[in-house]
Amino acid sequence: MEEKLKRKSDIEGVTATLLLSCQDRKGIVAEVADFIYRYNGNIVHADQHTDKTQGIFLQRVEWELKDFLIAREEFADAFRPLARKFDLEWRLHFSDEVPRVAVFVSRQAHCMYDLFARQRMGEFQAEFPLVISNHEDLKPVAEQFGAGFHCYPINPATKASQEQRILQKLEEERIDLVVLARYMQIVGANIVERYQRRMINIHHSFLPAFMGAKPYHQAYERGVKLVGATAHYVTETLDQGPIIEQNVARVSHRDSVENIILIGRDLEKVVLSRAVCLHLSHRIIVYGNKTIVFG
Amino acid sequence: MEEKLKRKSDIEGVTATLLLSCQDRKGIVAEVADFIYRYNGNIVHADQHTDKTQGIFLQRVEWELKDFLIAREEFADAFRPLARKFDLEWRLHFSDEVPRVAVFVSRQAHCMYDLFARQRMGEFQAEFPLVISNHEDLKPVAEQFGAGFHCYPINPATKASQEQRILQKLEEERIDLVVLARYMQIVGANIVERYQRRMINIHHSFLPAFMGAKPYHQAYERGVKLVGATAHYVTETLDQGPIIEQNVARVSHRDSVENIILIGRDLEKVVLSRAVCLHLSHRIIVYGNKTIVFG
Amino acid sequence: MEEKLKRKSDIEGVTATLLLSCQDRKGIVAEVADFIYRYNGNIVHADQHTDKTQGIFLQRVEWELKDFLIAREEFADAFRPLARKFDLEWRLHFSDEVPRVAVFVSRQAHCMYDLFARQRMGEFQAEFPLVISNHEDLKPVAEQFGAGFHCYPINPATKASQEQRILQKLEEERIDLVVLARYMQIVGANIVERYQRRMINIHHSFLPAFMGAKPYHQAYERGVKLVGATAHYVTETLDQGPIIEQNVARVSHRDSVENIILIGRDLEKVVLSRAVCLHLSHRIIVYGNKTIVFG
Amino acid sequence: MEEKLKRKSDIEGVTATLLLSCQDRKGIVAEVADFIYRYNGNIVHADQHTDKTQGIFLQRVEWELKDFLIAREEFADAFRPLARKFDLEWRLHFSDEVPRVAVFVSRQAHCMYDLFARQRMGEFQAEFPLVISNHEDLKPVAEQFGAGFHCYPINPATKASQEQRILQKLEEERIDLVVLARYMQIVGANIVERYQRRMINIHHSFLPAFMGAKPYHQAYERGVKLVGATAHYVTETLDQGPIIEQNVARVSHRDSVENIILIGRDLEKVVLSRAVCLHLSHRIIVYGNKTIVFG
Repeated sequence: MEEKLKRKSDIEGVTATLLLSCQDRKGIVAEVADFIYRYNGNIVHADQHTDKTQGIFLQRVEWELKDFLIAREEFADAFRPLARKFDLEWRLHFSDEVPRVAVFVSRQAHCMYDLFARQRMGEFQAEFPLVISNHEDLKPVAEQFGAGFHCYPINPATKASQEQRILQKLEEERIDLVVLARYMQIVGANIVERYQRRMINIHHSFLPAFMGAKPYHQAYERGVKLVGATAHYVTETLDQGPIIEQNVARVSHRDSVENIILIGRDLEKVVLSRAVCLHLSHRIIVYGNKTIVFG
Repeated sequence: MEEKLKRKSDIEGVTATLLLSCQDRKGIVAEVADFIYRYNGNIVHADQHTDKTQGIFLQRVEWELKDFLIAREEFADAFRPLARKFDLEWRLHFSDEVPRVAVFVSRQAHCMYDLFARQRMGEFQAEFPLVISNHEDLKPVAEQFGAGFHCYPINPATKASQEQRILQKLEEERIDLVVLARYMQIVGANIVERYQRRMINIHHSFLPAFMGAKPYHQAYERGVKLVGATAHYVTETLDQGPIIEQNVARVSHRDSVENIILIGRDLEKVVLSRAVCLHLSHRIIVYGNKTIVFG
Repeated sequence: MEEKLKRKSDIEGVTATLLLSCQDRKGIVAEVADFIYRYNGNIVHADQHTDKTQGIFLQRVEWELKDFLIAREEFADAFRPLARKFDLEWRLHFSDEVPRVAVFVSRQAHCMYDLFARQRMGEFQAEFPLVISNHEDLKPVAEQFGAGFHCYPINPATKASQEQRILQKLEEERIDLVVLARYMQIVGANIVERYQRRMINIHHSFLPAFMGAKPYHQAYERGVKLVGATAHYVTETLDQGPIIEQNVARVSHRDSVENIILIGRDLEKVVLSRAVCLHLSHRIIVYGNKTIVFG
Repeated sequence: MEEKLKRKSDIEGVTATLLLSCQDRKGIVAEVADFIYRYNGNIVHADQHTDKTQGIFLQRVEWELKDFLIAREEFADAFRPLARKFDLEWRLHFSDEVPRVAVFVSRQAHCMYDLFARQRMGEFQAEFPLVISNHEDLKPVAEQFGAGFHCYPINPATKASQEQRILQKLEEERIDLVVLARYMQIVGANIVERYQRRMINIHHSFLPAFMGAKPYHQAYERGVKLVGATAHYVTETLDQGPIIEQNVARVSHRDSVENIILIGRDLEKVVLSRAVCLHLSHRIIVYGNKTIVFG
């Protein structure tokens, strides 16, 4: 491993994060740790999980690139023998990458405000260049934060063609992550497929309770004592993708539907932003229809 | 109102609690307050709620019987004109009544232990003379707390006759409230009807999520990040009666089903006991399929 | 009560809210309710509380002005006999008043963003014309939301004179409520006195734990398993004013101080905004060093 | 490693748990994992943490004894070279050990009931042979659960001698863990020292708020909106030992001190029992005045 392979950018503070999963076998932890150790990587976080019922091993390892003896572009080759031995599924991320995020909205601004305010304050290492909507209402908010706003009104007749245009725009803008921030349209299969495990939705209920439309009204009708919000990856089946984060808040008979909606907003924005943060810091592995979230 | 009407037992500390509901109309609060005031009742708690969407007014008023000028047995007559004027539905309770509670169990003891320990510590003003079960397992726990234990094994062929015997036992023991403390049998319509709004069940999920059997297994499969428990009045439709109390706890991918079950136990017992306490202190009004819980 | 007394603005939906407190005496509920009823007021919310230990009665009553037979400017006269009889302390608010709020900040933007975003979305019935700071950093955020930004750098030598200028500015702008949104300066006695019960601070700990500086660092050092935030009215004694709202979030050994600070931010902004909302909707009565918050 | 070294008891399901800490150094994870792997141990859980600010590495590894090639009594010798190389502090536990627990109580029974009920239900792998008290009140509860009850009334004059007798009793009964379940006496230095990191107390507040006596009264006076409970290891400084677990519950102005005490009881018993469970399953490492709790 020659010193020349090292990139200039691998400076103080930059880390690599490896997410991997495989059938659980003896020795996997020791060999992965040994691999990084052998090439002089200083592990700053390591976390693993074994799903006993399915016999699956999952791991997240983060180490400093400074002094690490393998260059970024050489990693795959160097890691291949180990990956083959354990039949690993793996992804590698570098902490100085800056992913590009598109935010989809309709008429409600609370999640959008929260996401953009956090981006401005540096809570996300990501760019937010693009807002997509089916209504014009939130254009001023996008402008306020200097993001492009593109409106694609959708009705049954135009849905297919409009979504084709949206997909083009996403590709044009090299979008890595789509965030549905109270976008009140079911996203078509084309976009879902293209952004598999890279599209996060906020549903305004504690899933799987109250799937579908108007969950707060459903909650009010049912007389529940807590309402919730759920952030999940979008899959082809509505409101049934892998759950990333959830939270609840207490309500009582004193809370009207309008009040429950206000209480719910605070849940939604914090839960969604937390899920986006976890995704952007490479803390999530999806397997089956579940997520592992490394804390 | 003569002094002779006053009962000896209406001593220091005994209170009357009036629960009422009616169509919302101007003046109802003033007239009820004035009624109690006029007969020299000292209101110690008063709480009301108006359901705007349905136009229903609900109130709980508690006052000291000491110095109150109407005797217990005369209250209905005295209150009738006001009740008629507003077409009130109302119930009156006295704080020195001691209701009798039957606890239904199967094999899991955590809710049963919690209920009986609280009863012993004086948290409930109630007697717990009777435990009904479909299994023999928890007989020693009943004996430990000096309660009668009666086992009625149930299978499809014997269900009707066994439940008839249970109902007889409940009547024999003059039971006022039935608590299903993880009783793993669907209670038949006869008992449900007889104990309408007087039978409380604990369901081990955050209803309406995961109705029916094995909710923790369902929760594990779905990959939720919180699990819950729900105490509700039993109605003829399984797990759909008016919700009294709910709570949730955080779980993660680290929690096996077994662990989720343990976490859930603590929710169940506290939620169920809280619901029983609210019922016994006359803090709940059921209307439609919802509850008002006066805090 | 003549019809001419009625103001044009007392249209559909406008309500009056009366907050009152007095020594607890029989009949007070009945007489207040009767007063509003007699003048044809339709009560939409009423809530009361009796502090038994101190013998104090507190009440919040909200009714529709439409059809109410007393004009706004006549209320005090009409209500005086009742107020005298029970020696009431009382305030009256109308729901179409639009209070003016000044937000004090330093360098951290999360509470400021949250307050202004909510104001834009209409969650507060209030204007936010003014931002006061001791640093220039957040000027762009104020501009983004169209609020005036005034910077008063403070050091021990200039504190008195700068605060005098701040007070002038607050009066010039006719400010009704001051919100300290992570303003990292102890506010002097002059301003505190002038805005008694009208100045809300967010402290980034679960008071009374970790008063004073760097509470998250204190929390990290102590190894607590939950961190909190507290919104309270500002009094002359630091971090000891009447608490309005608090919340906590779980942390673990995995959370660095930096991470705890991020988790805390979400608590702070939601707790502070909730306190501001409660104040602006006239739901708080302060008595002694405590608050009654009518839900 | 000969097969003869294996003990009969190392059957299916028995695990070894290694808790270790040391100065953080590259390679530690790899070498520990490799050690267990080399001797054919099947790791079922592994979790580690690095305290960056102090440069300390902490780890918990649990593996099956079945097929592990080192006998229990040989482990120390086999592990010594590695322990020396990294200057490890380490403890090893086996899952078929059954520790003996003494429960200290005064007059309140809720924590005691909760602990004993869980022990009966098999939630703890531990024996609870002994209850120590300074009052006779809870003798019947101890008898109900078949535990020995020993009363040592304490006053300033007798404290030293009574605690000497308590210490003798603890040793006589070979007690491994002392649980202070609302024992309303400050435990003297002798016992504290003898049971360092093996004595758990429940304090009825969210520490460090409201240290010392009558915390619920303090909380009521201060007007907090949440009350809490804290389980911690006992050290020589009152209420300041390493925190194991905490939780809070919401209260409002409606809650009297008596009500807050009832709400607090549910926190206390669940928090204390959880801490005891974590200790008994060897999930806690204490370092400095903090705990690492492996989930």
